[in-house]
Formats: sequence, structure tokens, C-alpha cells
Amino acid sequence: MNIIAKPAGPESVTTGPIVGSRKIYTCPEGHPHIRVPFREIALEPTANEPPFRTYDTSGPYTDTSALIDLDAGLPAIRAPWIAARGFEAITPRAVKPEDNGFTPEDRLVAPCPATQDLRAARPGQMVTQYEFARAGILTEEMIYVAHRENLGRAEALDWASERIADGESFGAELPEFVTPEFVRSEIARGRAIIPANINHPELEPTIIGRNFLVKINANIGNSAVTSSAAEEVDKLVWAIRWGADTVMDLSTGRNIHNIRSWIMRNSPVPIGTVPLYQALEKVGGDPDKLDWEVFKDTLIEQAEQGVDYFTIHAGVRLAYVPLTARRTTGIVSRGGSIMARWCLAHHKESFLYERFDEICEIMRKHDVSFSLGDGLRPGSNADANDRAQFAELETLGELTKVAWNNGCQVMIEGPGHVPMHKIKVNMDKQLRECGEAPFYTLGPLTTDIAPGYDHITSAIGAAMIGWFGTSMLCYVTPKEHLGLPNRDDVKVGVITYRIAAHAADLAKGHPQAKLRDDAISRARFEFRWQDQFNLGLDPDTARQFHDETLPKEAHKVAHFCSMCGPKFCSMKISHDIREDSLRQNGLAEMSETFKSTGSQLYIKQESEA
Amino acid sequence: MNIIAKPAGPESVTTGPIVGSRKIYTCPEGHPHIRVPFREIALEPTANEPPFRTYDTSGPYTDTSALIDLDAGLPAIRAPWIAARGFEAITPRAVKPEDNGFTPEDRLVAPCPATQDLRAARPGQMVTQYEFARAGILTEEMIYVAHRENLGRAEALDWASERIADGESFGAELPEFVTPEFVRSEIARGRAIIPANINHPELEPTIIGRNFLVKINANIGNSAVTSSAAEEVDKLVWAIRWGADTVMDLSTGRNIHNIRSWIMRNSPVPIGTVPLYQALEKVGGDPDKLDWEVFKDTLIEQAEQGVDYFTIHAGVRLAYVPLTARRTTGIVSRGGSIMARWCLAHHKESFLYERFDEICEIMRKHDVSFSLGDGLRPGSNADANDRAQFAELETLGELTKVAWNNGCQVMIEGPGHVPMHKIKVNMDKQLRECGEAPFYTLGPLTTDIAPGYDHITSAIGAAMIGWFGTSMLCYVTPKEHLGLPNRDDVKVGVITYRIAAHAADLAKGHPQAKLRDDAISRARFEFRWQDQFNLGLDPDTARQFHDETLPKEAHKVAHFCSMCGPKFCSMKISHDIREDSLRQNGLAEMSETFKSTGSQLYIKQESEA
Repeated sequence: MNIIAKPAGPESVTTGPIVGSRKIYTCPEGHPHIRVPFREIALEPTANEPPFRTYDTSGPYTDTSALIDLDAGLPAIRAPWIAARGFEAITPRAVKPEDNGFTPEDRLVAPCPATQDLRAARPGQMVTQYEFARAGILTEEMIYVAHRENLGRAEALDWASERIADGESFGAELPEFVTPEFVRSEIARGRAIIPANINHPELEPTIIGRNFLVKINANIGNSAVTSSAAEEVDKLVWAIRWGADTVMDLSTGRNIHNIRSWIMRNSPVPIGTVPLYQALEKVGGDPDKLDWEVFKDTLIEQAEQGVDYFTIHAGVRLAYVPLTARRTTGIVSRGGSIMARWCLAHHKESFLYERFDEICEIMRKHDVSFSLGDGLRPGSNADANDRAQFAELETLGELTKVAWNNGCQVMIEGPGHVPMHKIKVNMDKQLRECGEAPFYTLGPLTTDIAPGYDHITSAIGAAMIGWFGTSMLCYVTPKEHLGLPNRDDVKVGVITYRIAAHAADLAKGHPQAKLRDDAISRARFEFRWQDQFNLGLDPDTARQFHDETLPKEAHKVAHFCSMCGPKFCSMKISHDIREDSLRQNGLAEMSETFKSTGSQLYIKQESEA
Repeated sequence: MNIIAKPAGPESVTTGPIVGSRKIYTCPEGHPHIRVPFREIALEPTANEPPFRTYDTSGPYTDTSALIDLDAGLPAIRAPWIAARGFEAITPRAVKPEDNGFTPEDRLVAPCPATQDLRAARPGQMVTQYEFARAGILTEEMIYVAHRENLGRAEALDWASERIADGESFGAELPEFVTPEFVRSEIARGRAIIPANINHPELEPTIIGRNFLVKINANIGNSAVTSSAAEEVDKLVWAIRWGADTVMDLSTGRNIHNIRSWIMRNSPVPIGTVPLYQALEKVGGDPDKLDWEVFKDTLIEQAEQGVDYFTIHAGVRLAYVPLTARRTTGIVSRGGSIMARWCLAHHKESFLYERFDEICEIMRKHDVSFSLGDGLRPGSNADANDRAQFAELETLGELTKVAWNNGCQVMIEGPGHVPMHKIKVNMDKQLRECGEAPFYTLGPLTTDIAPGYDHITSAIGAAMIGWFGTSMLCYVTPKEHLGLPNRDDVKVGVITYRIAAHAADLAKGHPQAKLRDDAISRARFEFRWQDQFNLGLDPDTARQFHDETLPKEAHKVAHFCSMCGPKFCSMKISHDIREDSLRQNGLAEMSETFKSTGSQLYIKQESEA
């Protein structure tokens, strides 16, 4: 693998596979040109098990045969699919000084030099995945995500013959196998989206919906206070390495347009933004100066760059602002507070709400998905589930239907800070108000008292709301409320949210989720230390923790660990029990024998829910 | 404060208050000699709020006026209470070479020189908190914990007049105020325990039960592989500093008796042990060589040292062992596997089960509480809620009643590894089978796939099962499955479990839990950075994370943070909204005005569940 360092842009990113695994590609049956990536974890020969296949969000960066050139951007794998749809070639909107926050020439970050042909829908032409789905058309993106979600499910489930697909899905309808037709029907019903701007051909499509694997999002972005383009692209690559399904670029301050060009051209995952942030920069940071024209211009600018989904805070209506006045923590959403300020200053209804049809029109033309923002989400347990929050959610439900009528894909953002007993009502209300459109929640944080540990306070809520039906979980890092996440924080946030998402999949009864738990549990029981590390979400950390106590290589094949030491090990005793059992031709039979002779010494094995 | 360093024993421990707070003592009304410790967090003058009072597990180590002398041990605050009960003075059992694992003289750790008068119940004399409670007698321990649980509740609730005690308690009966009589009745019903060996006079009593604050336990202990007496005492002091309510000493290997003497004499929290571990050391690590005599001798040895609760794996019956033969991870409890091995080797019923009455008799004499061990807990999601696990739980229910009949206090240990959808059935079954005796669970871990992050996989399950009714949560550190926790791991484990316990208290509707969330939320909204740090569970980490991005002292009074920067801040906008609201003589009133004039511009504020 070659990395070409570029002095003008980001200088380096992390490449190479996660230890113990390799990138593979397989094709859906009958589609030899659709190559879907997976990560395959090799197991020790003693395991006598096939390699374990996992979902892979990391893109070409973990492919040892890929040439990574950040200047050129990633390969445009979707280009032939998009080209075949006959969209109109358009002239890009010219970059304006305000796009980069009026950055002086000497401090301007150069844009990513990768070029692309810009496209938009012709008048009356279908362009969004929603429109194709409604028309009964299977797109390559749908075929891709169906194959991706299955993870070679047929073979894997066949191998693990003892699988019991239990779980409580609260009304989700997880299919035994995911077909392209199932994907299409879920998108057509508005229950799932594939965020996939036609100007983001580098994208490896992913699906977000309650009847698919729970996804996670990582936020990156420079701020007025700190960080640079190189840092942000590095964070993108780092976040997807550990499992971020989508990434939001929440940059503020200067160079915002040019930094985004680096991110877009080098991202294999959907990129989301909050266009309002950039619009605010364009008017010098004064919310009162915002207007429809500057916002509209920003939407077009970002849609042409290829952003896959926009957070639009159109549910913050003038009438709801007073509902926040007595809150403990007021309005904590940045977008929400900008719009609240604007509404109050002008004493007018939100232009996002009033111009919603026009917003739909722009987004539809490039298939930018809606992420309807929860501008009035609670910023503390005290404000959870209050009238302001739910009034906005009701409006988001109304806007969902408008967006669908305009042919757009939609998901809905959710809270925030919510104690455990108030979480489920959020999910139930969202499903009801928003016609089962995918829910995309931040946390929620189940207590406010642990700054420095809010990845954990929120993972509790995230796992629960994911179980109840949330389709994508927005990560929270240990720096929440305190500062900007660095590389380590991004990794901890992503791994923590992979835990929450997986715990949710398991509890929902996803037919495949349990396979990985079972594989690592077998490795644990059989003292296959390397397999235990490699099957985990973070092999590097697991190995390092093990080696702190038992550093020798020999200990990685040892039939003991540092907890009990070599003299005695509970797992070893279990092996003895199993051997005894085999030697005695089955303890279950023995139990039967005892029973038939009237002894109560053994009881029969039976399963209990 | 003076720390007297002792070459023979532990050399130093962490002392001094957590930053921003100080130790105070208050006395229950009418009991000027019962001094109950609390931690008081001072708030900035601009807060215009009284200092915030929290539960304090840390003992004299955080008291700046205390003299810490590890050789002398902590002050025996319970000595006069115990003396007044007229127990028999007994001659201590002589220490035998096997008590310290036959450690050679030159490697023997000296015992803690602190001496104490040993006591035991006279024949027929009441000794346990359970017996006193059943007899309608209020002990000093009951008065102490009632006052401790209230945390000055009357004043605090009076100040925070807006409190709404919502929550879903699943049948728990949390009182508005905790009275000594309520404590007594809960103990008499078997629903709560105060683990308090009469030979542990240094103890600051704490109560464990579903209708009190959820407690957490931290495990320490040296192993055959590593660590020392100094390290373990330091870990004890460190764990209680951050909030461990009880500590289990799970030491194995050499010097086990003498290390325990240092721990007992210097612990203000209840200490639990698994006597079987030491008994196994005494027979050279071969489970087959265990017998009732060596076990009984170990019980007496540890009861006389002052251990407050014993894990007794009496539910691992011979008949249940075959039920584990087909498990994915067999038996993972160390105690469980020792007993399973013993039962199989001798093909006999467990001596713990058969001698249970005799065990009760020894434990009752010193008021050692039972923690009935879950030797067959699942070690993987695959084995969760299986017949082996539940068969044992049914036996623990049977033994609970036996222990009560013998006058003993009892709690029940629980799993383990359990996916979210299988957690509640564990709680419900435990309450049913064990007559509402307190449940004490390890995690549970909600997925197996994250070695290195099992404090998080388990915090999710712990918060949930705590909400459902578990009385004490046993922490899991990041080193679980991988190695022995160091100081940092202990702290992360304790803070993580304080989060889980607090999230549970909040969701149950504990009348006081919300006060801390509200206090920190107000601090956040008002940019009182120092208060936000200090009201959190770990002020040091919060402050450090903040300073990574904004290190200057001036930034700690700044009305912005690093996320949005100085130009724009959502919280600042909310303040503007609030000011507008006041200026306009109340937006609520304005809303009324609009409504009365027929305008729909504002809607009325109402609460929603």
C-alpha cells in the first residue's frame, strides 16, 4: 500500500487492516460488478472454525492492495451506476469568499484537488432512492446494502447450527435474510434510508432503518477554537476504522468549504452536515442576519459537494420557543438555539418551516437525505420529555410526510438527556408521529452527573433506545460538555457506541448478532487468547491489557489467566467436567439412569426462557 | 493530617478530600454520639445555592482532621455500641501456617499490629441485625444508616421546591424519608441487610436493599500471579474514595490472612470475602482435598477477623453440575467450579449445602451476612438464563429461608453475562424465589464482544437491573477477562458503577437522586464551570478534559466552551430568550394574550409524561 503525502492537505491517515483480520470483497449473486467489502477475522487452527466475517465500515484504508492518495480521493465506485441514470451534468456553483468564512489568502486551506462531474436530476426525473423504491425499481445501492447486511448470513448460520434467534423486537420486523426487494420495500414505506448523494460517488452505501443492523454516527469537525483539515480527515478515517457507519462534519469557523472537500472526496461513508452552521458563518455569526437566501445558497453549495444528509431544524417553530423559557437548561442544540434566536428577533415563523417545500426540492435534486433536527432536545434530565421537545417532534412528524411527498428520504433526530424510565416513550412517540421513519438519537444520557464519562452515561441510554427501535445512534465521547474530542476520544466513543448498537441488535433478536458473541465465547472457553482479542471490537486494547499482567508470548497459549493463575482455573475445571461427561457416556444419560432408578441425584436438562 | 508510614505494612494511601469538597458529620436527632459522615460540595457564590451534600463512602481518609495510622487501624466507632450488647469475649483462634498459604518466614507479610477484643454471641443471645429487627429493637447501626440514607433530605428537598418525584420503581417502596423504624422493618422482612460483623468495629454502617440507594461493590485482592499487601490496602482506600460502598477481598495465593488483617483494620466499609478461596489454598489448590473441617476452620478464622459478608456457593448442587456440560462457557464462577469439581470427584452432594445449618450458626455468632453465591452464573450470553443458572437460583431461595430461620442476614448474587432482553426475568425470578432478599449482581454484561471495555458492556446491564430492583451492583473493570485491575482500572470501574447505580436511582424515582442532576444542570446552564466539575462524580477528570482544550483559568468563568467558541453559544442564546421572556413580563402570559386574541402563534405550556 502506498500513501502519497500531500503538503497542501492532510498529511497522513491510518491505513492497514485491524490486527488479525483482512479486507475481502464478495459480490451479490448475479451482480459481479458490485463488490461489497467485509472484514474477515482469521481464527487459530485449533478453533476448527471458518474465518469470522464482520461488517466493515473502514473503506479502502484497511485494504492492503489499495492505493491511498488523498489528493485524488477514493475510487468512484458508484460512478457507473449514477451515470447510467442519465442525470443532467451541471456547472458547479462558484466558490465564494464567505464559503470559507472570509479566510485571508495566507490562511486559506487549499481545497482537495480531486475533481468530479457534477450532476443533478433533470426536471421530472426520479433521483432519490425513495422515488426509485416507490416506483418498484431496484437500484444498485439497494442490492449493495442487502448483500452487505447479510454478511454471508446463509453460510454463517448454516455453520452455527445451534443458533436460537430469540429476542424482543418491540414490533420491528427483522427478516431472516435481507433481499434487495426487502430493502426496496422498507425504503418505499419510509422505514429505511440509504443516504447517498449522487455527487458522492465514492460512497459505499449503507442502510439506516429499524429492520437492519443498528448503525452509529461519529461527529468530527474543526471549531472556531481549534483543529485543522489534516486532523479532521485523520479523524474521519480513524472513526470509520473502528466502526462509524456515518460521520457528521460539524465544522464551524474558517476554511469550512475547503476542509469539507477533503472529507467528501475521501469518505466511503455517508457524510452529514448541519448547513445552518455554515450559513451562520457567512453572516458573521449573527443569527439575526440569517435569511432564506443565504441558507438556500448553502444548501446548494453543500449538496453539490456531495453531502449525503442534512440536519434541518425546521421543527423549531416560533410558537415553541416560549415553551423553553422555564427549562433548567434552555435550548442546548446549536441549530435549535440559532433558529429560536432568529424567530424571536424577527418575531416571525421559522424560514426553515415556511420554506420547507423549497428545501425538499433542492435536496431531492441530489438525493440528500433529511435528518430532521431536534432543536429543542432536552439538555438535562430535568427537561426530558417536556412539552417543548414533544411539540417539536409532532412538527417533525408533519414535515416527514411533506418530505416524502416531495420524494425525499427522511430520518428524525432524537434526544439528548433522558433518564431510563422516560426513554421508551420517546421511541414510541417517534414511531407514531413520524410514520416509522428511522430514528437517529444522540445517546440519550441517562444522568447528568458524570462529565468526563458521558460516553458511558449515554451508552446506557443508547443501548436501550436502540433495542426499542432507534436505527442510528449518534456517539458521545468522554469530552462531551467539556472540550473537543481528540483521536483517542473518537476511538473510545466509536467503540462504546458499537457496544450499544450490538447490545441492541442482540436484544432485538437480530438473526446474526449472536454469532459473534458465541464465537468469542468459544474462544474464551478454549483459551484461544489471540482469537479472543481479534474477535473483539478493539484487539489492540484487549491485547495490551492482557500483556500488562502476563506479557510473555507463551501466556497467549496458556490455559489460565492472571485472575486465578496457573494453579487453578474455573474454565479448566469446566473442561474436566465436560471430559468426565463424555467419558461417562453423557451425564444427561446418567441423569436419566438415576431418575429411572428412582434417584433424585440428577435432574433433567431443560431450557428456560 | 498525618500519615504514618509503616515499613512492615502498606506504605501509603491517598488522603485528603476530593477537590472542591469537605467532609462533614451530622448526628441523627436525639443521638449526639452517632456521627454520620457526608461530603459537602461548595458552590460558587454566584450560584446562590447551599453547599451540595452527597453520600460519602470514603471514611476518615478524606477527613483533613483525621490521623491516619495504618498500623493502629481506623477508630473503632462501633465499639461502644457493640460493648453495650454484652457479647462474650473470646480467645482468638491461633493463626496457623496454612492461613498464609504456608508462606516461608522470609516472605511472610507482617500482620497489621492493630489489636482488638474479640467477641461472639453467647448461647441464645441475639447478635445479628436481623434478630434485633425481628425483635423490634432499633440498633445504632439502623439509626446510623437511616440518617445516612437521608442525606439531609428534609433541607435539600425543601430548597429544591420544584422536585417532581417521578419514576417507575417496579414495585419497590421507596419512602419519602427514611426512618430508623423503616430500616428495622425492611431488615426484619429480609428485604435489606446491614453487613456488620461485631468484630469489625471500624465500620461505618451501610444498608443494602431495594428501597434504599443502589450500592456498588469493588473487588480487590492479590493473586497467585501478582500484587502485594500495600497495593491492596491502597486499592481499598482508592476504591472507597471514588464511591465503593463495599469491597470484596478476593485474594488468593500467599499471605492471605495477614493481608486481610491490614484490610479489615483499615476499612470503614463492609468487607466481603469468598472463604472457599482461602480454604482451597490451605489444601494446596486441589479442590478434591477440600472438606468441611478445613472450610469450617476458615469460616471461623475470617469471621473472627471481622469480615462482614461471605460468599457461600451452597447452591451448586451435585445434580446441577451435568446441566453445565453443554454450555458454551461451562462454569465461570471460581467458587462454582471448585464446588462442581468437588461434587463430581466425590460423587457427593456439596458439603456447603449439607452443612448449611452449621454455616449459619458460625456466621450468626459474629453477624456475618450471607452473600449466596451464583456459582452457576452464565459466562456468556449463550448460557444466560439456562436451566443450570435458574436451578441454582431456586436453591438459593430455599437456603435464604434457612438462613433467616437461623437468624442470619442474606443477600443473593446474580449474573453475569445476560443480553438486555433477558435481564428483567432474572430480577423478577430472584424476587420471587428469594422472598425479596437483596439481589447483588455482577454487571450483567450485555454482550461478549468487547474485551477491554467490559466496564461499559456491563454498566448497561447494571443500570437496567439496578432500575428493576437490584440492591447492589458488583463493578466490572476494563481489565475483565484480560488481567488484574490496577489503580486506574479500579477508579474507572467504580465511577462507571456509580453512574449505573445513580441512573437506576433516578429511574426508580428515588426522591433525592434528581437533586444532583438538577444542581449540575443549573451549573452547566449558568457557566459555573468549577461547580460543574465539582458536582460531577470525578472532578479531576472533568477539569483535566476541559483544560486540554481551554487551559486558561479565565476560561473557567467564560460564558462559552470549546464546542461553539466565544462567538456563538446555544446556552447563551437560551439566556437571551429567558431575559426576553422576563422583559416581556412572561412569555407564558404573552402566549395567553395571543390565545385570547385568537392568535395561534404561541401555544400554552403544559407538562407531558
